[in-house]
Amino acid sequence: MQAPDALRAQLEEYLLALELSPYLHGQAESVRYAVSGGKRVRGVLCLATAEAAGARVADALPAAAALEFVHAFSLVHDDLPGLDDDAERRGRPSVWAEFGEGVAVLAGDALLAEAFRLALVYESPAVARELAQATLGMIGGQYLDISGSDVDLAELHRLKTGRLFAAAVGLGLRVAGVPESEQVAWRVFSEELGLLFQVVDDVLDGDGYAVTLGAAEARAFAAEVAERSRARLAAIDADTAVLDDLVDGLAVRTA
Amino acid sequence: MQAPDALRAQLEEYLLALELSPYLHGQAESVRYAVSGGKRVRGVLCLATAEAAGARVADALPAAAALEFVHAFSLVHDDLPGLDDDAERRGRPSVWAEFGEGVAVLAGDALLAEAFRLALVYESPAVARELAQATLGMIGGQYLDISGSDVDLAELHRLKTGRLFAAAVGLGLRVAGVPESEQVAWRVFSEELGLLFQVVDDVLDGDGYAVTLGAAEARAFAAEVAERSRARLAAIDADTAVLDDLVDGLAVRTA
Repeated sequence: MQAPDALRAQLEEYLLALELSPYLHGQAESVRYAVSGGKRVRGVLCLATAEAAGARVADALPAAAALEFVHAFSLVHDDLPGLDDDAERRGRPSVWAEFGEGVAVLAGDALLAEAFRLALVYESPAVARELAQATLGMIGGQYLDISGSDVDLAELHRLKTGRLFAAAVGLGLRVAGVPESEQVAWRVFSEELGLLFQVVDDVLDGDGYAVTLGAAEARAFAAEVAERSRARLAAIDADTAVLDDLVDGLAVRTA
Repeated sequence: MQAPDALRAQLEEYLLALELSPYLHGQAESVRYAVSGGKRVRGVLCLATAEAAGARVADALPAAAALEFVHAFSLVHDDLPGLDDDAERRGRPSVWAEFGEGVAVLAGDALLAEAFRLALVYESPAVARELAQATLGMIGGQYLDISGSDVDLAELHRLKTGRLFAAAVGLGLRVAGVPESEQVAWRVFSEELGLLFQVVDDVLDGDGYAVTLGAAEARAFAAEVAERSRARLAAIDADTAVLDDLVDGLAVRTA
């Protein structure tokens, strides 16, 4: 089993060497810009799940890259002036601020299409099917986020953040060929992990759960969800030590 | 063999009855708005190809719908203020003019993700793979279109319009299970048909080929490409009478 840092390094190398569609012409520059600099939480989770479930890490790289592309797509479009209007991302200009709004819209589109191209390298359509469902969930979550009042916040987070975390685990299982009937314990874990990520995010940003629960309560809730995540892992019949490390990392992260 | 109008009616019925992802919540309204009112040229071409190549029309409906969703996605995003800034489409407000920019960005995203969900109902990933490549081509063409000067116009059109026309034929062939080795004649036809659509479009809009060739020359060129399209069809070992009707319809269309 490889440690998270080793998995991250392999994914980074794979993403750097990845050939984009030649059809994209100059559009490729903004796509590469959008993909660079991420923490790769979802991709690494996919790789660690795949290896724990019996797959070779190399076989899960296209799925992990597809998840990172979908994540990047969502950030590029969320940052647009018509949505969150963020001119900065990861300490540098966001894609629209760097390349203009038109190119940024197309960059997000290209990221999503490339994500499906990656998810479709597998012989079975199962990986791409799960990615499509997760993407629709994310989009629905973002819709709830911008449509404002009277929104169920738990549902918003389950969709906007949770679907892609669930898909990270789900794609790893599919690459490993785990039968549907044996996926339940893993999937329950993925729901807790998505929630953990969201609560810690809110604590760090001072919004969401940090507002509704208060900062101290939100921190305690994060610790509780981390504990539940570990308990879910313990119930899985596989060596989940690396996934335990990921839980620890997400629980104590400061950025 | 069913006539184009009968194919169009079936596709329209299928699109109306289609269930979107429940995850989309209120976002579904803008998605339905964006899909309604099209001429279904690409979808009908897919259905006619599939039937001519030996498939049942019903089996090709998800692929045809996926093409219409990708086409609608491209229109919704192209119309955005940051791209072509069109407030009107099909004689009514464009999606951003009706629902706002943020919802329009998400509507295009949802259309693309739903298109892949539809293309992934097939057991083989071949349909979705070809759709991903075609989508990347369209996006590259749109990039060339907005990036302005010094662009190869023929390449721009081959990508922006041509890739989805080629995919309409290609998806029909894949649904029918035509082996790669027997697809060449069909694919040569699809390239001519995409060009025909573009030239007639330019004649009707008074731009593109109507400017570079002059209106009369462009009309003559359209007639020549229509003739070439018919010759390509004649070389295919199948009953292509309905596809001949589609060529005739595209050659003389006035809207």
